[in-house]
Amino acid sequence: MIGQARHRVVVIGAGFGGRYAARALRKAPADVTVINGTNHHVFEPLIYQVATGILSPGEVATPVRELFRGQRNTEVLLGWVTDVDAENRTVTATAPGGLPYRVPYDTLIVAAGTAQSYFGNDRFAEHTISLKSIDDAVELRSRILTAFEMAELATDPAEQARWLTFVIVGAGPTGVELAGQIAEIARRTLPGEYRRIDPAQARIVLIDAADRILPAFSAGSSAAAARRLRRLGIEIRTGAPVTDVDAGGVELPGERIEAMTRVWSAGVAAAPLAARIAEATGAPTDRSGRILVEPDLTVPGHPEIFVVGDLMSLGGLPGVAQVSIQGGGHAGRTIRRRLAGKPAGKPFHYLDKGNIATVSRFSAVADLRGVRLSGLAGWLLWLGVHWAYLPRGRNRASSLIRWAVTFLGRSRPERAVTARQAGFPAAPETAPGPAAEVAAHA
Amino acid sequence: MIGQARHRVVVIGAGFGGRYAARALRKAPADVTVINGTNHHVFEPLIYQVATGILSPGEVATPVRELFRGQRNTEVLLGWVTDVDAENRTVTATAPGGLPYRVPYDTLIVAAGTAQSYFGNDRFAEHTISLKSIDDAVELRSRILTAFEMAELATDPAEQARWLTFVIVGAGPTGVELAGQIAEIARRTLPGEYRRIDPAQARIVLIDAADRILPAFSAGSSAAAARRLRRLGIEIRTGAPVTDVDAGGVELPGERIEAMTRVWSAGVAAAPLAARIAEATGAPTDRSGRILVEPDLTVPGHPEIFVVGDLMSLGGLPGVAQVSIQGGGHAGRTIRRRLAGKPAGKPFHYLDKGNIATVSRFSAVADLRGVRLSGLAGWLLWLGVHWAYLPRGRNRASSLIRWAVTFLGRSRPERAVTARQAGFPAAPETAPGPAAEVAAHA
Repeated sequence: MIGQARHRVVVIGAGFGGRYAARALRKAPADVTVINGTNHHVFEPLIYQVATGILSPGEVATPVRELFRGQRNTEVLLGWVTDVDAENRTVTATAPGGLPYRVPYDTLIVAAGTAQSYFGNDRFAEHTISLKSIDDAVELRSRILTAFEMAELATDPAEQARWLTFVIVGAGPTGVELAGQIAEIARRTLPGEYRRIDPAQARIVLIDAADRILPAFSAGSSAAAARRLRRLGIEIRTGAPVTDVDAGGVELPGERIEAMTRVWSAGVAAAPLAARIAEATGAPTDRSGRILVEPDLTVPGHPEIFVVGDLMSLGGLPGVAQVSIQGGGHAGRTIRRRLAGKPAGKPFHYLDKGNIATVSRFSAVADLRGVRLSGLAGWLLWLGVHWAYLPRGRNRASSLIRWAVTFLGRSRPERAVTARQAGFPAAPETAPGPAAEVAAHA
Repeated sequence: MIGQARHRVVVIGAGFGGRYAARALRKAPADVTVINGTNHHVFEPLIYQVATGILSPGEVATPVRELFRGQRNTEVLLGWVTDVDAENRTVTATAPGGLPYRVPYDTLIVAAGTAQSYFGNDRFAEHTISLKSIDDAVELRSRILTAFEMAELATDPAEQARWLTFVIVGAGPTGVELAGQIAEIARRTLPGEYRRIDPAQARIVLIDAADRILPAFSAGSSAAAARRLRRLGIEIRTGAPVTDVDAGGVELPGERIEAMTRVWSAGVAAAPLAARIAEATGAPTDRSGRILVEPDLTVPGHPEIFVVGDLMSLGGLPGVAQVSIQGGGHAGRTIRRRLAGKPAGKPFHYLDKGNIATVSRFSAVADLRGVRLSGLAGWLLWLGVHWAYLPRGRNRASSLIRWAVTFLGRSRPERAVTARQAGFPAAPETAPGPAAEVAAHA
């Protein structure tokens, strides 16, 4: 058991920011408590591969307890943090089943990540699916695969076309990667498996309000990615802000696209916790609700509260994994220096290592500190980087097999959609009334 | 598109029975429609490994469409069959979202499997979890792993003990395999990861009303398995019929076991569809609700309806994979012979290839036509048999890695429990009221 007298650090969230913050404290004379809403750390850059049947959840999710097993000054608690009491230095969390509990801190690191932003439009949230968690990824996978099943059962051609249309709003890396993989499912994996529809005819539309896809990349990389996507038969709509979304499609200025599968990967907003923290500390927030921090990543007037990762707003830094990783490390090291009585408060400096996005198998674009790669060269770099960053040897070995199956072969290793995921009730026990005369040999 | 004049065979279910029935029809002059409630065939003998974090769902689930991709006379439809109209020779199914549809047949093969039997006791169903589908397996995995998390958060020792107690009712192969794997999770995987509890202290109780575990096995194999389980610290209660189950535990004659995780693997009952078919055809059913078939596996008075696998009752044959596989093949071959104008109606002969059950890593028991193996020899046989039966090369390669990680190492590759699976609401947005002063450094 951990003693009482030591400095207590609470880390909210075990994403990239929380993980690297807690890790930087491994030799600090402090007791560290990591509170996370699930039992796992997600390797977010590969979550789209769970959504498209390439990797299993376990291959992109490492148990938080496993990460800190050997770090004896650190404990892990399962819970969603719902509030912070900055005056009494206490965090409130909820366990599964609704049990609330409190954890006191001397120093707090907030790394609670983001929710998807719908720019205040609830209809967008209701009628699209986003891709932030394993829950999202499994649900999106279910929707993509079930759409082809529903098209096979449909007898009305317009309904069939709606099921075979996939719209992705937001052409950042996740949107681009998803569009490419849905195209490969439709054109490479499924053909030959259906008797009434041709899966290869599926329509995939990638939409962004900006004037080009991958706006954070160089113009050259953006153009190379767009060329490759068009070769895969993906329609690109840039400069096209979505004006409405409903249960049957998406509206753009002057165009309506009928589609049963609608993905939202445009823009992130701060997690709801950010508002509670702003309230508790008087901290200013930016337009997205993120907390404006001091150069050392602390909350103004609260040197004992750090905010890192997607919840932090500082000099326009983007919400990418590298900012979280480096910010988390900075917060952890700052606390360590303080505890050692050394001068702390050094400003955070972000080292931009570059951007990389896969477009399809054997094709990626990368902008790396002046060097631009695309096509196979970019893809091999993607492979190497992601393989090296994947946590633990076991995931590396099985992921390599999954990638070989998918990219060299044409299968997808993880295609099981359960009854619950497909939206079936538990196996219906009785006939649902007079059956419509649809489908099947009719 | 498939023509109209050909003989139409409908196969209900793509478990072992349906899969091998449809496969036996691949060269028959008939159009075959396989209707299944999910998009995948489940390799049931390994489903307990999904429930204990060893394999991913995709590794025990093969897409039904992939199985029949090259079988051009066969189509696959997603749907739960809810009724059979024997007079008009039509099957009614429901698609996701509730859309009903009808499919006509000339010959019908019913291979709809079983539901878990609770011997008419709804309380048992309400307060236990069974293990028949991937949904079940993922939920059980979530409950097992979350139980340790809840124990870590609990402050009351009695509550902690309840979370750390796992009861399995039914000591057939699934119950034994599950008990062994839960013991290995508690004693090998989790130690070192918790700071407040010792996962190795978890109590695992295996209960059966019969006077020994693995009643279908030889007395020698049963005793060998019991010895091994006891060495793993598993408590065995035989001759112990469960008299009640509630939200906090299980009642046996003269004993109550407090346990938050309660698994039901005792007894199967026919799927609800069996009752509809009995009603539609006047077929007799046995005590479990299974349909009593003629020696050629057809329904009395309905030579055009076959019942195979767990829904069929014939001469006391057990509900095991081999009976389904061989029965499905027999039905398919009988139809092929009829269509070729050859004498059909040959009785079904079951070839019992034996029984095998793993107890823990490196230890299994097997009864094979007079030969009895146990310990490492049995386990190597288990490994070989299951590896050979696993569908498709890709699953074989990745499963081997998973088994090495789990059995040579001490990790579990699939431990991710999502917020939805753990029973969290979507990330709670506000504090859930005054927090109880529980847990955490208090």
